Amino acid sequence: MLKKRIRFEPLREKVTDPDTACLHIQNGTNLFISGFTAGYPKLIPQALVRRAKAGEQFKINLFAGASTGDEVDGILARADLIDWRRPYMSNRGMRQMINNEQIRFKDDHLSRLSAQVRNGGWGEAHVAVVEAAAITEKGNLIPTMSVGNTPTYVREAEKIIIEISAEPPALEGIHDIFIPEDPPYRMPIPIYRAGDRIGKPFIDMDPDKVVAILDSSEQDSCAVFNEPGEVPRRIAEHILDFVAHEIRKDRMSPGLPWQSGVGDVANAVLSGFMENDFFQTIDIYSEVLQDAVLDLIDLGKVRAASGSAMTLSHKARTRFFNELYRYREKIVLRPVEISNSPEVVRRLGVIAINTAIEVDIYGQVNSTHLMGSKMMNGIGGSGDFLRNGAISFIVTPSTAKRGKISAIVPMVSHVDHSEHSVDVVVTEQGLVDTRPLTPRQVAEAVIKRCAHPDYRDLLWEYYQQAVHSAGGHEPHLLSEVFDFHQRFMATGDMRLN
Amino acid sequence: MLKKRIRFEPLREKVTDPDTACLHIQNGTNLFISGFTAGYPKLIPQALVRRAKAGEQFKINLFAGASTGDEVDGILARADLIDWRRPYMSNRGMRQMINNEQIRFKDDHLSRLSAQVRNGGWGEAHVAVVEAAAITEKGNLIPTMSVGNTPTYVREAEKIIIEISAEPPALEGIHDIFIPEDPPYRMPIPIYRAGDRIGKPFIDMDPDKVVAILDSSEQDSCAVFNEPGEVPRRIAEHILDFVAHEIRKDRMSPGLPWQSGVGDVANAVLSGFMENDFFQTIDIYSEVLQDAVLDLIDLGKVRAASGSAMTLSHKARTRFFNELYRYREKIVLRPVEISNSPEVVRRLGVIAINTAIEVDIYGQVNSTHLMGSKMMNGIGGSGDFLRNGAISFIVTPSTAKRGKISAIVPMVSHVDHSEHSVDVVVTEQGLVDTRPLTPRQVAEAVIKRCAHPDYRDLLWEYYQQAVHSAGGHEPHLLSEVFDFHQRFMATGDMRLN
Repeated sequence: MLKKRIRFEPLREKVTDPDTACLHIQNGTNLFISGFTAGYPKLIPQALVRRAKAGEQFKINLFAGASTGDEVDGILARADLIDWRRPYMSNRGMRQMINNEQIRFKDDHLSRLSAQVRNGGWGEAHVAVVEAAAITEKGNLIPTMSVGNTPTYVREAEKIIIEISAEPPALEGIHDIFIPEDPPYRMPIPIYRAGDRIGKPFIDMDPDKVVAILDSSEQDSCAVFNEPGEVPRRIAEHILDFVAHEIRKDRMSPGLPWQSGVGDVANAVLSGFMENDFFQTIDIYSEVLQDAVLDLIDLGKVRAASGSAMTLSHKARTRFFNELYRYREKIVLRPVEISNSPEVVRRLGVIAINTAIEVDIYGQVNSTHLMGSKMMNGIGGSGDFLRNGAISFIVTPSTAKRGKISAIVPMVSHVDHSEHSVDVVVTEQGLVDTRPLTPRQVAEAVIKRCAHPDYRDLLWEYYQQAVHSAGGHEPHLLSEVFDFHQRFMATGDMRLN
Repeated sequence: MLKKRIRFEPLREKVTDPDTACLHIQNGTNLFISGFTAGYPKLIPQALVRRAKAGEQFKINLFAGASTGDEVDGILARADLIDWRRPYMSNRGMRQMINNEQIRFKDDHLSRLSAQVRNGGWGEAHVAVVEAAAITEKGNLIPTMSVGNTPTYVREAEKIIIEISAEPPALEGIHDIFIPEDPPYRMPIPIYRAGDRIGKPFIDMDPDKVVAILDSSEQDSCAVFNEPGEVPRRIAEHILDFVAHEIRKDRMSPGLPWQSGVGDVANAVLSGFMENDFFQTIDIYSEVLQDAVLDLIDLGKVRAASGSAMTLSHKARTRFFNELYRYREKIVLRPVEISNSPEVVRRLGVIAINTAIEVDIYGQVNSTHLMGSKMMNGIGGSGDFLRNGAISFIVTPSTAKRGKISAIVPMVSHVDHSEHSVDVVVTEQGLVDTRPLTPRQVAEAVIKRCAHPDYRDLLWEYYQQAVHSAGGHEPHLLSEVFDFHQRFMATGDMRLN
């Protein structure tokens, strides 16, 4: 079985066990791993933890494509093996350590990272550990369920460890690997339609750098998507109605591709197309492809779906692998610097839909920090798509914590996306197209149409006071601007008692 | 003279006087004018003001490329003739009315505007008024000292009024006009080097839409650049030293083009190249070209300088027109959607240098709003360059108002650029490369190296308290975060008495 996957014969002698392989990783190693929600290595992290449990003292710097499963971020954080982690994570234990500065972390736009690594900005690439479906006859690499930054990591690494996964080899052909030249000698990225293939179906690799190959039977942990509830369904409806209206009014071109962020709400938005008659066939140019994409393909509603990774529920996963030959024709997995490329996103005119932790009355967006200080997951690709899309939606349920937190606040406690990157604000309550409005008009509309009724009066009172006391283009009362947040921190509820 | 400028004979009969021409502009007209710091029409605004002074009641919506002179924004604001103004301005009287919501204004990234107009996002383009150096034999338009959004305005307008300027006709050939197709059918913008020409030296125009041509002898008001003082010179030194160091260490490619924002400090940064031996020849891919660019061309230090407009002092202007044949070989003026294109800026790997009103300890940047509420000028192109540059510098003197305002604050009172768009923070005090640092490390370094000594202790005290009381990835004390600003508003000084 493993032999069939390692089609480049000289590499077969590199097969070894995880404990031996992981000796290439020592205290201070910069470890660059595959993985972008899925497709991360599973054996090496366990082996590292075994060494730590046996009493060895060491720390590594861990760089991935984006988040990984608990099998990487969780167990390595709990074993206190990580000094630096970049660029994105979503693991509870790791998050806590990042917020305590026990793990050093820097959040960044995902489209920028591969180029930074090639420039040496993350230090020397000591070891790459990558999950692969196969090694080709010429010694190149077939990735699994994600591409992320893996092509650059494999190119830059001094040593490469490969975990051959049991994922069906039929994944071969779904990837499109293209590493752009770096400035000042970069040429255009030649993607003109969402489904265009511009590279190779494998990652170029120098087989001489491979120091170990492992036989893995581990699987990615699956995503759990809830059946879309009332709130996400109404958000989806608002968006689809609005876009259909704009197209009918000839203010938007039909045929713009769609991007939808990660998680439940994002999945629900795409699900909204299933029962929608206006949109017959859509293109998807996104970052992470979730269950809804498969549903839409099954309905014949997808012309092409491009992303950097697939995160599927257990059920969708089985379906995907059973009929891979069919899905492979519609789906392209690319490096994240291509899936999120500002150049391509703006050229195609992506309709960008991303979720927020909180949005303020003027449309400034917090995607990352709870109460201004505590990192949640990271900015991910939201900035790449929001800033460059033809139209950008920021979506959030109007409240969180059973009503105790308003997602619409006077001023967000951290800004990831300025009002200039946000065209339309959407909650289950309603939608505001901010583009033809002044900031004051935006505030009035967002309070009226997007805020939860429980918070409208409070927001309106703040806004009126700000207009009268501070005035200006975007009136703010700096002394009271975080009253909502401070009240929540004091009483556990943003509402007045 | 005018005859020689109107080389398309049928249009000669359209020559008329400003008062007649301006009757095409009525109450509610959407008026799209040329102008991007320079190259704005001068006769029609005066004629509109005469009508207002004669007692006529009307308002227009005014859209330009960016800011214009007092001859447009100043006099029209004072006559209270403007309902909407977009997308950027720098006029004192207009600013005041915008802050009182007497003029409606919406700030936006300049790279996005032309496409919005083509999509109808700004309403119907009733009348375009454009300054031109000449009309070609086939009835096309040669702009003057700026391109801005003029090509799109001319294409979309129902009626066109042309002010033929007395600027030397030798300007012909300096412009490169290219309007990209709109998504989803856009192709790559084929600029591979800063000086590449990809379009025509004139703006395509349908002569049938021309309703009036005016003979103008008015000139742009000239910029005033102060001899760089100690502070801008030290900022420039920090930047050039840092970039030279990065290139020597092989962490940055030599040959990346430079962008420098608008104003004194930006001009001083480019002047810094004059006495610098490390940088022999540079490319400039910027937005507004100022005096320093001519100085560098004279020294043989510029391979190519690309922008959307030229803003010159009186002295530099004379020099420029005297030897236009020579400068024209080095300078390209483009539409702002091309000069500021995220696609091109990222492809070329621009070294972006932009100024801030204030920067916070974590590197969030306020470029637009004084004390959180009052609009200064607008975001302009700073976001286009900062976000997409290969490396982004944000620069500011460490204090303003003779020390009473610290440009380094605990939290900026408005965010235009998040920490993710900012690589390096520079004041005359010093420089911090934030890229390899966690937010806490950034805060410590910015306080130590960028803040003015008068404010270091106050900032340090805030930061320490935030770490201990709030904790988190980016510790903030929401109750005290705007103490600096509130103290200034109460006492006129951010320092403690």
